[in-house]
Amino acid sequence: MEAYPKPALKNDTLLRALARQPTEYTPIWLMRQAGRYLPEYNATRAKAGSFLGLAKSPALATEVTLQPLDRFPLDAAIIFSDILTIPDAMGLGLAFAEGEGPRFERPLRDEAAIRSLAAPDLAALRYVFDAIGECRRALGGRVPLIGFSGSPFTLACYMVEGSGSDDWRTLKKLRHARPELLHRILEVNAGAVAAYLNAQIEAGAQVVMIFDTWGGILAHEDYEAFSLAYCRRVLASVTRVPRILFTKGGNPWLPAMMSSGAEAIGLDWTADPREARRLAGGRVALQGNLDPAALFAPPAAVREAARRVLDAFGPAPGHVFNLGHGIMTQTPVDSVAALVEEVRTYSKALRRDRPISS
Amino acid sequence: MEAYPKPALKNDTLLRALARQPTEYTPIWLMRQAGRYLPEYNATRAKAGSFLGLAKSPALATEVTLQPLDRFPLDAAIIFSDILTIPDAMGLGLAFAEGEGPRFERPLRDEAAIRSLAAPDLAALRYVFDAIGECRRALGGRVPLIGFSGSPFTLACYMVEGSGSDDWRTLKKLRHARPELLHRILEVNAGAVAAYLNAQIEAGAQVVMIFDTWGGILAHEDYEAFSLAYCRRVLASVTRVPRILFTKGGNPWLPAMMSSGAEAIGLDWTADPREARRLAGGRVALQGNLDPAALFAPPAAVREAARRVLDAFGPAPGHVFNLGHGIMTQTPVDSVAALVEEVRTYSKALRRDRPISS
Repeated sequence: MEAYPKPALKNDTLLRALARQPTEYTPIWLMRQAGRYLPEYNATRAKAGSFLGLAKSPALATEVTLQPLDRFPLDAAIIFSDILTIPDAMGLGLAFAEGEGPRFERPLRDEAAIRSLAAPDLAALRYVFDAIGECRRALGGRVPLIGFSGSPFTLACYMVEGSGSDDWRTLKKLRHARPELLHRILEVNAGAVAAYLNAQIEAGAQVVMIFDTWGGILAHEDYEAFSLAYCRRVLASVTRVPRILFTKGGNPWLPAMMSSGAEAIGLDWTADPREARRLAGGRVALQGNLDPAALFAPPAAVREAARRVLDAFGPAPGHVFNLGHGIMTQTPVDSVAALVEEVRTYSKALRRDRPISS
Repeated sequence: MEAYPKPALKNDTLLRALARQPTEYTPIWLMRQAGRYLPEYNATRAKAGSFLGLAKSPALATEVTLQPLDRFPLDAAIIFSDILTIPDAMGLGLAFAEGEGPRFERPLRDEAAIRSLAAPDLAALRYVFDAIGECRRALGGRVPLIGFSGSPFTLACYMVEGSGSDDWRTLKKLRHARPELLHRILEVNAGAVAAYLNAQIEAGAQVVMIFDTWGGILAHEDYEAFSLAYCRRVLASVTRVPRILFTKGGNPWLPAMMSSGAEAIGLDWTADPREARRLAGGRVALQGNLDPAALFAPPAAVREAARRVLDAFGPAPGHVFNLGHGIMTQTPVDSVAALVEEVRTYSKALRRDRPISS
């Protein structure tokens, strides 16, 4: 049920690249493009008082979602939010201490808490859907809007550990001592993520991305069982828009990820684009994968790094330029400008010089 | 020049496995096997007063090096030391705050400091060579003694950043803004690591291992240039004993690592043993790769996990059982006992049931 008319898309380059259709140039957006490297973001965040205050205000979330688009000719907006909204809505109490990562006030620390875990009432996440609606209106069809969630496993990491971790000891102890309890959490999470992403689509998200930020900490034989299997469940239920699946550190499992059902696979900066293209065999699109730290180089070197990434992916359809992980806090704004411009001009030239073959 | 007679080796299973020769069973040792999960280690460390005090006392380092061998029938000892002894000897001032990782008091923070960096006088590392000599005497040929160092790149990570990091921002800024300065550090480090490992061999180390703990944070196109190239230099100069090269997160670069000259490649827990065996094609030995967290499972599950790793590597020569990373602090001692016993008995049975073909 659409509460308002949705303007036609003026720039659908991202959607065409995700569908592996030819595009005039390689579309680009950046993970965490609305973030602390932008002075205007910091100003809005100061108004909001806190990161969560910002994420929970549809008006302010819309404001920061659009900020990078006003500076750079990016090909997508991504709704300003957090990967951990679902466990927060489950009552675990998400909090961000200044300068630190996320922390849950009430992590899952015993069997009773795990047994009583349930998918949240989507009404508790209404601020996200409202922000998406407001963003769509504000975008007026300039570029597509991406919705997202943490993966079932990545949510579980924080829900069990209570915060980020070097070794995820609590989570891994649970996996090895009581794997059935971890599966119980993942099952609830998979249902919740699917419902959440579908509600985002209902609200106006035109692409969705699953951030499996911590799948890469799993043992080889565990990745399929504890992360990918639950992403597959989500993907099977969220089918109305193109889906991007990203596992940081997912290199060993790219072939499995590529058969997950997602239209596109996100690559981190350690992945070999040529090998990934070979594995994809034109069956899925690829997104990535410049090292976010490369933006600390002088502008000429940033442009050179961008060209190397574009050369490695090649001019064939199905590449979305992105960083291999979120943009870093102190990234010079000028580097981002140079990157976006270089991707546009060089990828156009690539297509001119080397006609698309595969 | 040997200052004392070295007894003949009674158990050379590790050396034969590293040479990809048939062995009666799969040898096993564990990264950080002399560590805080052992009550006797904690007792000796309390005597020493600190981690560095322990590492710098040849008598106490010998004591803890041998402790795990008195409990478990392991196939190797590894000298108790730290991967960061070289920068400490360069004058950067290594320190360990209680419960935290390593920290340098004087990290490399400007060009002048980098330009004046030089390989340390090996006399400053004499405590390591003395400990190796003393360990060899104390071992009396029971099993081989492994020496080690951090890789040139991993040393540089801590030397530039000053401590461990989530994103190695300072190091990565240097790599992108002033790559020639990072190369200068790596060059000095490579010379220092080679000299250091050769001196360890002179002192009695029968195998050496290069711990490239942080090579995995590098971008795909950077790993060869900033880490592997310098490991190759070390390997070219350290040739008298078998060499193991381990890059945590090195999955995307296993083929390159396998042609580095090292006799064996260490695999972290995310690596697929079957794929690694295929890539190795019998040309290098493989070491690994049980998830250290698997030792938190009940003993029956630990045994099952050990069998799965052995099945995945198969009975062909050239596998050294190990964890995919260091043993974790609170690991139950009984789990380690179950693991070591299971690896011995099951790998023997594997060889009986499935005669070695390749």
